Amino acid sequence: MKNAVVLLSGGLDSATVLAMARAQGYDCYALSVDYGQRHHSELEAADRVAKMLGAKEHRVVNIDLTGFGGSALTDNNIAVPQQPGEGIPTTYVPARNTIMLSLALAWAEVLQSQDIFIGVNAVDYSGYPDCRPAFIEAFERMANLATKAAVEGSTLTVHAPLLHLSKAEIVQLGTALGVDYAQTVSCYQADEQGRACGVCDSCRLRRAGFAAAGIVDPTPYRSA
Amino acid sequence: MKNAVVLLSGGLDSATVLAMARAQGYDCYALSVDYGQRHHSELEAADRVAKMLGAKEHRVVNIDLTGFGGSALTDNNIAVPQQPGEGIPTTYVPARNTIMLSLALAWAEVLQSQDIFIGVNAVDYSGYPDCRPAFIEAFERMANLATKAAVEGSTLTVHAPLLHLSKAEIVQLGTALGVDYAQTVSCYQADEQGRACGVCDSCRLRRAGFAAAGIVDPTPYRSA
Repeated sequence: MKNAVVLLSGGLDSATVLAMARAQGYDCYALSVDYGQRHHSELEAADRVAKMLGAKEHRVVNIDLTGFGGSALTDNNIAVPQQPGEGIPTTYVPARNTIMLSLALAWAEVLQSQDIFIGVNAVDYSGYPDCRPAFIEAFERMANLATKAAVEGSTLTVHAPLLHLSKAEIVQLGTALGVDYAQTVSCYQADEQGRACGVCDSCRLRRAGFAAAGIVDPTPYRSA
Repeated sequence: MKNAVVLLSGGLDSATVLAMARAQGYDCYALSVDYGQRHHSELEAADRVAKMLGAKEHRVVNIDLTGFGGSALTDNNIAVPQQPGEGIPTTYVPARNTIMLSLALAWAEVLQSQDIFIGVNAVDYSGYPDCRPAFIEAFERMANLATKAAVEGSTLTVHAPLLHLSKAEIVQLGTALGVDYAQTVSCYQADEQGRACGVCDSCRLRRAGFAAAGIVDPTPYRSA
């Protein structure tokens, strides 16, 4: 069995990726990051999802990004947008995926793993720059110069298997792999019970995905 | 005045870099990372150095890498080598510079800064892969695909002004810029008072640097 580090937010996409990595036969080490995100219940969802999908281990790394701020997810003075707007939304968190992938890189090296999985998507997404294929490629290239493992001949692959899938395709794929999406939390302002607002960008994309997939949306919406 | 984020460990190299960035007219935001390093007194040194060299602000981000381990600096079961050995030493910390630069990238974006400074050196160094020019270039390239700032046309530069200098040249340069190296701590196993062991790789390189520079070494050695 090969080890893989899987970044697991507790949302729909990363749960699907964990199921895919497991289906490919990897021993999965799920990594979540508590960066002070507003939607803290996603971390509880991550724990449920890791257990449900048979991760070998689930670890939560704490790193407080609220001190930097600069995002609606890490600064309570910036509101989560309720309508799609122009450009990159305020829910963008500066360098978030770079930081998370860096932590995954560290753990992967210690585990002697050559594989990191991340659930970024560049189709039905919010336009975050660190979800684009060019970013993932550049991170992988950098990672292969960064570590002792790389110097010693190990090649790291950053797998982003959802990159070119629509949200509907992701939902269909995960459903076929047995993912119970009721356990996942995507909403940026989910309440303590994990109930979704139904109107933020993340809820909007998720709802539309289930609708387009023709699969009943199991998400508990507090506004529904 | 332009803002710069300067990674500041509290050691000789990063103190020199902070002095260089200040001399170039940058408003400097010093960033240290408490990753659970064995030589914790370097963080107190970082605080002294930031004040001494007029950093606008000094911030310490906590991120516990001891859970990952894999290094003599983050796992007390791995001894710090007392003699130079073959290959990359056990003091290498998996993905450390990648993680630190990622945090610097986040802060730089919030500060609307286009400049990050890091004191890596590839001449008198321990052979760490994430101190090599190719790594720094690859990180910079990745960073310029990672952020909202980059998408909006801002170009980030990762300055590594010590990359091709010998330790003696670094000491001479810093001394000319008024750095009081007695305030810095390089030793991997400095005691609580910041006194150095004199024998670890970091001490060895530092001692040889002062000797070759013809400058009196102000380091307090506990074995001397």
